[in-house]
Amino acid sequence: AMDGAPPPTSPTGLSAYVAVSQLLGLTLLATTGAWLGRYRGGVAWHSPLQFNAHPLCMVLGMVFLQGDALLVYRVFRHEAKRSTKALHALLHGLALVIALVGIIAVFESHRTEGIPDMYSLHSWCGMAAFVLYLLQWLLGCGFFLFPGASFSLRGWYKPQHIFFGIALFILSITSCLLGITEMLLFKISDSYSHFVPEGTLANILGMLLVAFGLVVSYVLTREEWKRLPLAEEMALSMDFKTLTEGESPGG
Amino acid sequence: AMDGAPPPTSPTGLSAYVAVSQLLGLTLLATTGAWLGRYRGGVAWHSPLQFNAHPLCMVLGMVFLQGDALLVYRVFRHEAKRSTKALHALLHGLALVIALVGIIAVFESHRTEGIPDMYSLHSWCGMAAFVLYLLQWLLGCGFFLFPGASFSLRGWYKPQHIFFGIALFILSITSCLLGITEMLLFKISDSYSHFVPEGTLANILGMLLVAFGLVVSYVLTREEWKRLPLAEEMALSMDFKTLTEGESPGG
Repeated sequence: AMDGAPPPTSPTGLSAYVAVSQLLGLTLLATTGAWLGRYRGGVAWHSPLQFNAHPLCMVLGMVFLQGDALLVYRVFRHEAKRSTKALHALLHGLALVIALVGIIAVFESHRTEGIPDMYSLHSWCGMAAFVLYLLQWLLGCGFFLFPGASFSLRGWYKPQHIFFGIALFILSITSCLLGITEMLLFKISDSYSHFVPEGTLANILGMLLVAFGLVVSYVLTREEWKRLPLAEEMALSMDFKTLTEGESPGG
Repeated sequence: AMDGAPPPTSPTGLSAYVAVSQLLGLTLLATTGAWLGRYRGGVAWHSPLQFNAHPLCMVLGMVFLQGDALLVYRVFRHEAKRSTKALHALLHGLALVIALVGIIAVFESHRTEGIPDMYSLHSWCGMAAFVLYLLQWLLGCGFFLFPGASFSLRGWYKPQHIFFGIALFILSITSCLLGITEMLLFKISDSYSHFVPEGTLANILGMLLVAFGLVVSYVLTREEWKRLPLAEEMALSMDFKTLTEGESPGG
């Protein structure tokens, strides 16, 4: 508000929900760290602890950063669309890089320990989530960042991008829960059923992941909280409407 | 079309997506049956096979029937709202009863075999899904089936009901995937990593569950496929608008 106008306000409740989502996000990172640090010997790269980089990177990249990347259009609702879009792409890009490091960690650790890859439901879901997430990012850049795509093509793709964006976020969380279950049954299969602290902590991590997914999805899908076009974008979109209606009278 | 008018049509594509969802739903029931029948000795009640009633009932109740109950407003879009609503409540009620049988199966089987209850992430997620699903059903009946709730109260609750309905459907599917992973690691932990047929079949069941969730969610959230009010409901809703605008001029 350089021009002295009153600062634009956000819809009631949105800020509170976003704050809760960030609190949950940080708590789930801390809980992952606590689990790996306190019960699994910590995290290191060229060592038997390399595996532990996998859960840490996946929770940070595929859940926390992916979730926050989805929220930027709600949080920065009064910024120019162009910069918000760039931040959205950048956060997803960062999430992808961190997830890739996490995937390398598990493949290298499997190779070192002679464990086969890609046999479990966790690996199938997780790999599907990662590959489709990368594809979604590439398609998003192609349709929305580069100037080649026509307005009508963007208009067709946008709802698909939004649906699959939320779906992949949920599939990522599901893959994390599967990973937690696998890890507990590999490491503490004998004591898990006796409610040992490690099992309870990991279960709580799972429930925090579900809660994070719920709050982020709620913020994203609530009709009244959708980002409205700014005044200057409205003018543009009017032009667009006239343009497309001129293009095809039947549409 | 008793009056000879042309039969009302559904939006393009909707029928195809619904057909795919039903094909997926039947395939996942058949795959569950095949897994339990071919590799787990089949299903029976008062026997060591009682446990197997659990996965069968949960997939049938918490996934297939719950999913189909969510679809009724899209599929029966030209029927009276009142009967569609009754079918929606009825299918969810049936899903709850079948899920309850599935839950009794696992608790009784645990008691017989001396296995503790409710220690795993699967049990936490699954129980949360079932209890919240029951609550959602009770709230849905209270708000929408009984005449007590005011129009404005229904209007406030409806988007919450829709959001949590889809969220609980997804949480139910997630719980099934966790259950599949647990069951494989309990039963075939030694051979799972060697890509034995049972493991691959169960993984495929998991991916079918994900696909069913994706297709049903896509049908439910696609804007153009939402059920539009029928002509006579439009008239009613006009009356309602006048009424509420009369009630509170600020709204």
